[in-house]
Amino acid sequence: MTRPNLQVALDHSDLPSAIKAIKTVGDIVDIIEVGTILILQAGDQAVRCIRAMYPDKTIVADTKCADAGGTVAENVQKAGADWTTVICCATIPTMKAAAERIEAVQVELYGDWTYAQAQLWLAAGIKQVIYHQSRDALLAGETWGEKDLAKIQKLIDMGFQVSVTGGLDVDTLKLFKGMAVYTFITGRGITAAQDPAQAATAFLDEIKAIWEA
Amino acid sequence: MTRPNLQVALDHSDLPSAIKAIKTVGDIVDIIEVGTILILQAGDQAVRCIRAMYPDKTIVADTKCADAGGTVAENVQKAGADWTTVICCATIPTMKAAAERIEAVQVELYGDWTYAQAQLWLAAGIKQVIYHQSRDALLAGETWGEKDLAKIQKLIDMGFQVSVTGGLDVDTLKLFKGMAVYTFITGRGITAAQDPAQAATAFLDEIKAIWEA
Repeated sequence: MTRPNLQVALDHSDLPSAIKAIKTVGDIVDIIEVGTILILQAGDQAVRCIRAMYPDKTIVADTKCADAGGTVAENVQKAGADWTTVICCATIPTMKAAAERIEAVQVELYGDWTYAQAQLWLAAGIKQVIYHQSRDALLAGETWGEKDLAKIQKLIDMGFQVSVTGGLDVDTLKLFKGMAVYTFITGRGITAAQDPAQAATAFLDEIKAIWEA
Repeated sequence: MTRPNLQVALDHSDLPSAIKAIKTVGDIVDIIEVGTILILQAGDQAVRCIRAMYPDKTIVADTKCADAGGTVAENVQKAGADWTTVICCATIPTMKAAAERIEAVQVELYGDWTYAQAQLWLAAGIKQVIYHQSRDALLAGETWGEKDLAKIQKLIDMGFQVSVTGGLDVDTLKLFKGMAVYTFITGRGITAAQDPAQAATAFLDEIKAIWEA
């Protein structure tokens, strides 16, 4: 089984903090996410700066686009993003419009999405979804469980490349053992660690230990 | 019946274009929206500039927030926004977290939301919703109809302040006659007009003609 990618999410509220954070871990991780909070604060400059620092990495602009998919995707693509995200309650025309302007679109799964909707995303040519434990839900005390794992497996079985995010740490990864997860995404699990480079390496080593064993 | 507000949406892809556009119509409209496309491109500078230009207007930062509601709302509030938007598929904890950090939160209605969900928003203290014809849906040939008007009336009857947006023009307004619409939102209907100030005045005059008659 191919090992899952490691994606770091930069969810800082200002660009200097984000640049400082990525400088120590950007060469370790597989994918760099310019987080929604950061884009809303720093605009396309955030994507441009990260692209300038890492010309060869996969960069995701996490716009969580809900409308005007063509314009949003084109703007972040021009700024240097390889992929962008759309919210699951966006219409299919919005998702298609986005998908036409950038290499890949990822559907962010929040709230009450359905597998019937997911089938429409596949039919629209969208292959990536992000199974997201809401940060606010986590703060409200909800955690990973069998229910989540079953949903993730079903999405994988449907043919999606599934990224998993929300409150992950190195110890959580083994919960997903045996599953063809596409990418694990973590933000503060790496960037807020005392030694971010060490934390990123620990994530990657654990992924390799589980999936390349 | 109180007349609906007129809100102009700035959905430009760069800040100079947005500032040029608002300069001619900002004093005419009731509410100024810093659109999603603009925020994603220019960041919080967009909100700060519009607030600097219009210290006394109601300003909405259209973040369409899906997660990290507290941080997103706090950031745009600090930049000068009175209100922000959340996407309808955000979780209730996300909406509540946003509502705690800013004067008002508006729920953007996209895709398959339900009245049962809407009741939860009311229970969470959120009073504003935005009934949104997707731009991409409009491009795909869908338009306003009885189905839309019935949904808007039901939301009003539930107790929401309902903003209406998507492909509106001066001639469309009379479709809503007799309905207690809270706000009409238009972007290019004003900003892309040959004479934006004249277009804004025409919208406002028609609203007054219908609702103050």
